[in-house]
Amino acid sequence: MIDFYFDFSSPFGYLASQKIEALASKHGRTVKWCPMLLGAAFKATGGVPLTQIPLKGEYAKRDFFRSARFHGLEYRHPEPFPVNTVAACRAFYSQAERKDAVRLAKALFKAYFGDNLNIGEPDNVMQVAATIGLAPNISDQAVKDKTKAEVDAALAKGVFGSPYVIVDGEPFWGLDRFDQIDRWLKAPF
Amino acid sequence: MIDFYFDFSSPFGYLASQKIEALASKHGRTVKWCPMLLGAAFKATGGVPLTQIPLKGEYAKRDFFRSARFHGLEYRHPEPFPVNTVAACRAFYSQAERKDAVRLAKALFKAYFGDNLNIGEPDNVMQVAATIGLAPNISDQAVKDKTKAEVDAALAKGVFGSPYVIVDGEPFWGLDRFDQIDRWLKAPF
Repeated sequence: MIDFYFDFSSPFGYLASQKIEALASKHGRTVKWCPMLLGAAFKATGGVPLTQIPLKGEYAKRDFFRSARFHGLEYRHPEPFPVNTVAACRAFYSQAERKDAVRLAKALFKAYFGDNLNIGEPDNVMQVAATIGLAPNISDQAVKDKTKAEVDAALAKGVFGSPYVIVDGEPFWGLDRFDQIDRWLKAPF
Repeated sequence: MIDFYFDFSSPFGYLASQKIEALASKHGRTVKWCPMLLGAAFKATGGVPLTQIPLKGEYAKRDFFRSARFHGLEYRHPEPFPVNTVAACRAFYSQAERKDAVRLAKALFKAYFGDNLNIGEPDNVMQVAATIGLAPNISDQAVKDKTKAEVDAALAKGVFGSPYVIVDGEPFWGLDRFDQIDRWLKAPF
């Protein structure tokens, strides 16, 4: 098992979500999908969304597209960007079965980055869930509590960015560390 | 020619400095070394030194060492860190011959990251220069002006980090984009 942390509104989280299963299975591992909220991490780190930073923001937009091409993936920059992904997170953590949660995660990523659907809107999250036969109860207090607990647990483990992968206790931040993860899964170096 | 921007106090700048010449020459290119001041860039981006950021700072220190091992390089974290590199920059830009400037850049990186010499101190910069037969006049006003003009020119090109490489107008930030530079030098994608 390897732990895959991401925010549903993160471009590199989205790109990584299309690479992580193959990377893990190449080494006989499975993936634990762990959505978190970058907004909560930013409170801890003083961070702001990449695209809003002078100079860095312009570079970042170019880098999303080029990095996607480099990895043989498609990228489309959604608007509005970024969005609050708490409803998406709650929908994920409301699922009793992890395989349903993962199906939903993939559908939410595709809706936002592929179809430009604003998954910051709870109604749109419900609509995406319905297309794959799910009806999450995102206003349930137990679901809200579980989501908060999962996000807090991620922060407690030091997860400050997206994607963020933990392999046997070793942390890797960014799609650009997937080459290091690949080598680490062969043998820690 | 490819343009290689870096700060003398940047860990990934240091690691990149040991990879950039081979990467360029593999594709029949030469390297233009362009030291800049991250402090000036941080004023534009609101950035702070990586190691001072909660959560990210702890990760970054681990990542310096692991990334060095991944690339087959040695790393030693200097103290104090980071240091003001304006004297180092001035020593570089004071050189009439680019080959002397590049020899000095390599010597300064080695002094700080290899021998833990505080190159934030102008006296130490002079000492390093002396070991390779150079005697830069870092208090000369023309040298100060040239240095400021070079740093401003870097910022005007959007250089906000270290290392930052520009290949035929295409910007790449970070040692972790060297794989993309390698492919770009074969053919833009």
